[in-house]
Amino acid sequence: MSVLAVGSIAFDTIETPSGKVQDVLGGSATYFALAASYFTEVRIVAVVGEDFSAEHESVLKKHNIDTRGIEHASGKTFRWGGQYLDNLNEAKTDFTHLNVFETFQPHIPAEYADTQFLFLGNINPNLQAAVRLEMNGVRLTGGDTMNFWIQGARGELIDTLKLVNVLLINDAEAKMLAGEKSLPRAARKVLSMGPSALVIKHGEYGATIFFREGAFGIGSHPFRAPALPVEEVKDPTGAGDSFAGGFMGYLASQGDVNREVLKRALFYGGVMGSFAVERFGTERLQNLTRQEIDARFQVFRELTHLE
Amino acid sequence: MSVLAVGSIAFDTIETPSGKVQDVLGGSATYFALAASYFTEVRIVAVVGEDFSAEHESVLKKHNIDTRGIEHASGKTFRWGGQYLDNLNEAKTDFTHLNVFETFQPHIPAEYADTQFLFLGNINPNLQAAVRLEMNGVRLTGGDTMNFWIQGARGELIDTLKLVNVLLINDAEAKMLAGEKSLPRAARKVLSMGPSALVIKHGEYGATIFFREGAFGIGSHPFRAPALPVEEVKDPTGAGDSFAGGFMGYLASQGDVNREVLKRALFYGGVMGSFAVERFGTERLQNLTRQEIDARFQVFRELTHLE
Repeated sequence: MSVLAVGSIAFDTIETPSGKVQDVLGGSATYFALAASYFTEVRIVAVVGEDFSAEHESVLKKHNIDTRGIEHASGKTFRWGGQYLDNLNEAKTDFTHLNVFETFQPHIPAEYADTQFLFLGNINPNLQAAVRLEMNGVRLTGGDTMNFWIQGARGELIDTLKLVNVLLINDAEAKMLAGEKSLPRAARKVLSMGPSALVIKHGEYGATIFFREGAFGIGSHPFRAPALPVEEVKDPTGAGDSFAGGFMGYLASQGDVNREVLKRALFYGGVMGSFAVERFGTERLQNLTRQEIDARFQVFRELTHLE
Repeated sequence: MSVLAVGSIAFDTIETPSGKVQDVLGGSATYFALAASYFTEVRIVAVVGEDFSAEHESVLKKHNIDTRGIEHASGKTFRWGGQYLDNLNEAKTDFTHLNVFETFQPHIPAEYADTQFLFLGNINPNLQAAVRLEMNGVRLTGGDTMNFWIQGARGELIDTLKLVNVLLINDAEAKMLAGEKSLPRAARKVLSMGPSALVIKHGEYGATIFFREGAFGIGSHPFRAPALPVEEVKDPTGAGDSFAGGFMGYLASQGDVNREVLKRALFYGGVMGSFAVERFGTERLQNLTRQEIDARFQVFRELTHLE
C-alpha cells in the first residue's frame, strides 16, 4: 500500500564538524519520502518555488515517488541554514527563509484519494488536521511536531492529536508536550490526548514505542529498538524524518498492523535514521539498496538479541 | 565463584525531587556488593569509622556478604551529600567528607587470596593497581573510574587500565578518557589502552559492551542491553555501582566467560541499576528476590526481542 507524506521541501545550508554544504535538497517530506521509498510506493504533497528544477524533482522520481502533489508556486523554495558545531544532537539555526512555504496550503490531488497510510510532517497543526479530515479513507495516520508548535499552538496541536494514530517525536518534545519529566508518565499523558501509539526517538540510543491500553489489540507493553553506534555522524539533519519514513514505509508495505509489524517498523525506522546521518543531506538515502537496509536490520537485531 | 569488591562505604545525604534522606548507608562497595549478592558469594574490602555500627554491618551480612575485609579505623566514616533537584542524571555535590577514607589503604585478608573475580570500585587508580597486583589468582578484573581521576591522575589511570579486563564507565567518561566525541571511536581508543571489554552505561537508555578484537575469542561486534523506562527515578545514587554488581555478580556465578554470558551479564547489570533507583539509597537492593530480578530480566528481554 502507498504512503503519502505531507511536509516541506527545502534547500538546506548545513555546517557540521565534518564540513559544510550549501542549498542541498532537504525538508521533512524529502527525507521521509526517500526513506520510505525503499519499502513501498510513496506520494508527496509539498510546495516548491521556481528554483526547484526538473533535476531536483528527478531525485524523487528516480525512487518512484509520485510527485503530482508538489505544488509549484512563484517565488523561492523554503531555505534553512543551521550548524551542529558544538553539539551534534541539536541544530543551531542560522536562518529560516520560509518563502513559498509561508503560505503553504496542502492540496491533495484527486489521484491520492485512495491513500491508506498518511504521514503529517512537522507543519502547522491546523494544516495537519485539515489534510487528515480531507482524507476519509486513511487507515493509519502518523504525525510529527516540534517545540515551536507545542509551545506556540498548543490548543491546535492537541486537537490535531485526536486525529493522529501514531505520533513520532523525541524525548524532549514528549516531556514538553506532557509537562512530565518521567518518560513513561509523559508517554501515558500524550497517549491520553488521542494517539494509539507514541514513538519516542532517543537519537543514538534508539527509540521506544508506547501503546495506549487496548490499541491495535496488542496490549500496552512498550517496545524498544536500539540504534547502531554510528562511527561518524556527518550530518544529523533529517534523521527524525528518515526514521519516520522507514517506520511508516515498512508499515504501509505490510498492510496488517500488528505488534510484530510495529516492532519491525521501529527497527527499520532506526536503520533509515542511521543511514541518513552518514552523509550530508539526503546523499546516503539517495543511494541505498534494500539489501544494505536488510543487512543493517540484522545488525540491529543481533545487537540486542539474546539466545 | 565469589567476587570481591574494593571500594567505599559511606553515609550519604541525598535530596531529589522525591524527597530527602540523611546519613543512609551507601558507597560504591555497598551498592556493588548488595547487587552482586543475588548472584554469587561476595567479599568486600573497604574502610569504615567508629560510627559504622553492627547494625550497619548486618545489612551486608544478611546478604551473606563476607565483611572480613572491612577495616574499622578510628574516626568517622566517609560522608557524602548531594542533590539531583535540577537534573536526575547528574548529582550536584553539597559536601564530601572523606574522613577515614582519605588514608584508605586496601588490605586483602588472606582468606580472600583465592578470589577469581575482582571489582575495583572508583578509587585512586594507584590503589586499584596495587590491589590487582596483589591478587595473583584473579581471572577477571572489572573496574570503574570517574572524571576526577581521568583529569587529575591520567597517567596513573592509564597504567591501571592495563590491569583491568572490563572497564565500566558512562558515555561522558568514555569520551573524556579517549578525547573523542564519537562513541565507537572512543570505545576503540579506550580498548587500545588495555581492557578486553568496555561497558558504556547510557543511564535510562541501557548500556553497550564493546570488545577488543580477539578478546575472549568472541569477535568484536558490540552488544547493547536496553534499560526499562523507569516510572519514577526516586534516587539515582549508586545506579552505576549496582549495574556493575549485577554484571560482575552474574559473570562470577557462571564461571565461563563467553559472548552469551557477557550479553546476559549486561542485561543483569541494567536490571540491578533499574531496581536501585526505585528507592532512596540501598533500600530496594536490600529487599529483592531472585524471582523479581529474573522477572525483570524477562521484561528487558521482551522489550527488544523480535520474533
